[in-house]
Amino acid sequence: MTFINDTSRSSRAQVRPLALERVKLGGFMGRYNNIMRSRTLISQYELLESTGRLDNFRRAAGKIERDFQGFFFNDSDVYKWLEAASYALIDNDDPELREKITLTIDVIRDAQNAGDDGYLNTYFTFEKVSARWTDFKNMHELYCAGHLIQAAIAHRRVTGSEDLFAVALKFADHIVKMFGKNGRETTTGHPELEMALVELYRETGTREYLELASRLIDNRGKGLAGGDEYRIDHVPFRQLKELTGHAVRMLYLVAGAADVFLETGDETLLAVIDRLWADLVGRKMYITGGVGSRHEGEAFGEAFELPNRRAYTETCAAIGSFFWNWRMYMISGDGKYLDVMERTLYNGVLPGISLDGLKYFYVNPLEDIGNHERKEWYSCACCPPNIARVLTSFGGYMYGLTLDEIRVNFYETSEAVIPFRDGEINISQKTGYPHDGEIELTVSTDLDMQLSILLRVPGWTEGEFDLQIDGIKQKAKVEKGFIKLTDNWKGKTTILLDLPMEINMIASNPMIRENTYKVAIERGPLVYCAEGTDNEGFSVWTLSVPVKRGYDVQMNEELPGGYMAISGKGIAYDLDEWEEALYKPLAAVKNKGRNVRFTLIPYYAWNNRGSSPMCVWLHVH
Amino acid sequence: MTFINDTSRSSRAQVRPLALERVKLGGFMGRYNNIMRSRTLISQYELLESTGRLDNFRRAAGKIERDFQGFFFNDSDVYKWLEAASYALIDNDDPELREKITLTIDVIRDAQNAGDDGYLNTYFTFEKVSARWTDFKNMHELYCAGHLIQAAIAHRRVTGSEDLFAVALKFADHIVKMFGKNGRETTTGHPELEMALVELYRETGTREYLELASRLIDNRGKGLAGGDEYRIDHVPFRQLKELTGHAVRMLYLVAGAADVFLETGDETLLAVIDRLWADLVGRKMYITGGVGSRHEGEAFGEAFELPNRRAYTETCAAIGSFFWNWRMYMISGDGKYLDVMERTLYNGVLPGISLDGLKYFYVNPLEDIGNHERKEWYSCACCPPNIARVLTSFGGYMYGLTLDEIRVNFYETSEAVIPFRDGEINISQKTGYPHDGEIELTVSTDLDMQLSILLRVPGWTEGEFDLQIDGIKQKAKVEKGFIKLTDNWKGKTTILLDLPMEINMIASNPMIRENTYKVAIERGPLVYCAEGTDNEGFSVWTLSVPVKRGYDVQMNEELPGGYMAISGKGIAYDLDEWEEALYKPLAAVKNKGRNVRFTLIPYYAWNNRGSSPMCVWLHVH
Repeated sequence: MTFINDTSRSSRAQVRPLALERVKLGGFMGRYNNIMRSRTLISQYELLESTGRLDNFRRAAGKIERDFQGFFFNDSDVYKWLEAASYALIDNDDPELREKITLTIDVIRDAQNAGDDGYLNTYFTFEKVSARWTDFKNMHELYCAGHLIQAAIAHRRVTGSEDLFAVALKFADHIVKMFGKNGRETTTGHPELEMALVELYRETGTREYLELASRLIDNRGKGLAGGDEYRIDHVPFRQLKELTGHAVRMLYLVAGAADVFLETGDETLLAVIDRLWADLVGRKMYITGGVGSRHEGEAFGEAFELPNRRAYTETCAAIGSFFWNWRMYMISGDGKYLDVMERTLYNGVLPGISLDGLKYFYVNPLEDIGNHERKEWYSCACCPPNIARVLTSFGGYMYGLTLDEIRVNFYETSEAVIPFRDGEINISQKTGYPHDGEIELTVSTDLDMQLSILLRVPGWTEGEFDLQIDGIKQKAKVEKGFIKLTDNWKGKTTILLDLPMEINMIASNPMIRENTYKVAIERGPLVYCAEGTDNEGFSVWTLSVPVKRGYDVQMNEELPGGYMAISGKGIAYDLDEWEEALYKPLAAVKNKGRNVRFTLIPYYAWNNRGSSPMCVWLHVH
Repeated sequence: MTFINDTSRSSRAQVRPLALERVKLGGFMGRYNNIMRSRTLISQYELLESTGRLDNFRRAAGKIERDFQGFFFNDSDVYKWLEAASYALIDNDDPELREKITLTIDVIRDAQNAGDDGYLNTYFTFEKVSARWTDFKNMHELYCAGHLIQAAIAHRRVTGSEDLFAVALKFADHIVKMFGKNGRETTTGHPELEMALVELYRETGTREYLELASRLIDNRGKGLAGGDEYRIDHVPFRQLKELTGHAVRMLYLVAGAADVFLETGDETLLAVIDRLWADLVGRKMYITGGVGSRHEGEAFGEAFELPNRRAYTETCAAIGSFFWNWRMYMISGDGKYLDVMERTLYNGVLPGISLDGLKYFYVNPLEDIGNHERKEWYSCACCPPNIARVLTSFGGYMYGLTLDEIRVNFYETSEAVIPFRDGEINISQKTGYPHDGEIELTVSTDLDMQLSILLRVPGWTEGEFDLQIDGIKQKAKVEKGFIKLTDNWKGKTTILLDLPMEINMIASNPMIRENTYKVAIERGPLVYCAEGTDNEGFSVWTLSVPVKRGYDVQMNEELPGGYMAISGKGIAYDLDEWEEALYKPLAAVKNKGRNVRFTLIPYYAWNNRGSSPMCVWLHVH
């Protein structure tokens, strides 16, 4: 069974996940799932091949003679692809994809077998062998190892095969020998291995992996990985007061620390990640869930530093936040973490891939003048396969289990077969979510016992919802983001949950000075934006939308998947009066606006029809 | 006689400058002038010594044995200091300063004499000799040479001494031999030499220097300095459409191109710098005159990309813009360039140095949360001596001359003795400018002839002013930023120009989305800001100021030099209601403000009383 994180035996997990095999996705996320299999993973495999990433392994194995290609951390892209591709086999055991996976595993194993100690990194081969394990600050050996281990665990869980797992285990044991309790002190320049080692501990029960993960965290702040803030090595982990440094590194690190806490229950770790989470949602997160404000150093900014146009908000950072919040949810069972995950998935991760699954954003600004473009690939291609592994595994996040509860974390058309005690419960969801708020859940089971089904009520509903069970209206209280329905569910029950898909105008804390006197429009879990393509004849940057709504909402099928477009009557301010001037006396500003008809689309769908100006935060009148 | 730029014989100069010796500054800029001599230059000299910058020369001369200290371009700081210190001798031939100059020139000459070909760069000595002239992309040999030449010209013009000039000439001739018309093709990775070579041509009449300056410009876009946008080597100079790349490099480059145009009249150069200037003032300049929006690459942003908090706006970039606009003014005689210089000097350059002349800003944000701090020095210390050379030479920018005009470019308490035809005209200015708008100019001369005195009417006046000549009110038309008074001035005439020192509320082009619904407060040429220090009990970031003014303006003498503080009654919005939240429904925002008394200070004076939150752009109601 494939658990994204197998917290079944984690001492501090309040919530356990449901195996990926148990959920069959349709609907909105199901479409992404299909695209991953039918297009994205194939295109990515071809790119791994054409950019020399697979050849790097062949070269390391001595099968071909050529120079090492690309970045020294390019192995990790292959591993992330393998993880995503493994998940993709679950729904559809496509022989072609399986063959590509096998082929890839073969070249990896060959590369490892060219040595004799289990070490595996295709950059540190031949003349660079002597440089292995010498530069923990800059070189990503431990990072790549982490991705290998994660891929191997996923592959083993999905297929039962030991092929890749044996490779990962061999390397992991080499790493434990080098850096475990009898080895050298080190830490990760780019965190990632922490999460992988804890999962490997969950998979094998071998305590050394967990201990090494702990050690990597405990060793921060000693200068073992450069000693700088960029690598979050400037202070010991437990002294971190805020999210700082390289965003992806920081988020992978705290996700890894959460994993360690789940196993060890070390409260000193939880105290840190709790305060960092408060910093995330109180000071450093975009409304899209995107994080990491600065281009310079791909870093977190200061408190409230959330520039829209120069937002860096790397897709991988959104993914890091998604991973972290998932672990926080497993620790606490609190729906507020799922709220961040939902916000981040729909508005922080999905914008990172085009609707056809073939182009990507590395950087996700909330405002653009029309220059930002999707690309088919990046020389530093961390984001594309990272998106793929999230989207092929989304089913694994849909439900949560406790001893006496089944928790519906997310809403998507889907069929789930949920093992519970000595039986099974089927939950079928029918919904147009996230475009529609009506969710029909059909629960059917032979189990003849009391148990609770918890339905998540997203934060964006502000606690408003309608609930019917078998046609009878129900009242229910929301606690920690869920309503709890306790019953004997034997037979078949239809639950109708109606979440209010209103247009919400969201204001921003005045400390984010960019956004004052502006609003963001949300509808359900989706953040909207104005894109030039839909709004000809005026600049969306000058668009002001009315507080009094009277907006139209209409399904638009023009783009793959379709979406609900919002349109209305607004005002676009006049730019002519500025005549190439940047500044002029306020008294001379006419600020004449003219009435325009505007259209907004979900932010995840932007830049799918070429580049044009775009903004999320809009003036309001 | 010391001209900043000696355009006396430049074929395309409509305006010639007045020699520095001819103007004795008092008042506002006079205070800075005094501070430069009495403190800044002494402290900088000690830092040049303590940071090993002078030792680098001693080491190169073989006088001491130690490693090279600091950055490979550190020689340039010594040269810039020499240039500033030379100018400082004019007003006061201080023996101590003169001795420090002599001593510095000695170590420089010794370092050059250690070789035999005139080459001079202390980094490329001993084991690094073979690396000379091999990396035009990264190493700043030509940049340092430019600063040496500029310092040497200044020193010669001020003192008449050939000591440093001979060194510079020897190196310049080496460079011409290497890269002149019979030499290798190259260009500058960091422009600066262009301006220096043109000035050296002006000083010597040797055409090779001018030709090489042209060549450096013509050679851009060929990949000779890396071929990238950062170094403005991505396209040929004449194909540049917008200001792009590293801001200081770009601005030094266009200033150099303007210098070449002044001598050669090559209209294809003028076309480029004209359109880049339109880009500057129409799309890329902060209200402070600061330029270069991005921390990443110290670069220009896209059009209208002018973030306040993450403004990079390096002090040196403001200086580069000041230099460039000076040349544009000499080319055209148009006061619009002086407007940019004035804005930039008071609001873009002066904030870069503390009021006591001992601390600096490298980066000049227009908004800060209270973390930004002045420093005594920087490891990359380009800004401190760059500020010093501007402030010690400001007198040289005060006046402009044409064949039949004397132009008053700037207003500052000062005494000028202006040679005109076969006589002299004395102009004495008495004014509290920039804090006060009343300027009393006393013109006295024995010259018995018609000539025009042009008085600049700054753009911020919107053409409003009062003018009296010998007590009689005058009408006058503003043309290209000046009013022209043509008369026979024999005897003594008192001109009273009264510029309206009102509080001006400035709005910003809606394309700068950060600033919409905000105003900047200007009074005369000064941009104001709200600083936490003056505004206790509320966050200046939430301050809203009334459109209806009723503000008080009062001299505050607390800080050196004093300034006019603006105070009034505003509203500060409530942050409590946000309770650690970043976003919430607009309908739930109470936006309760409370009445507060606020105080604004000139932006140049901020961060002189420790760090506290600050912002230039304010909400308005």
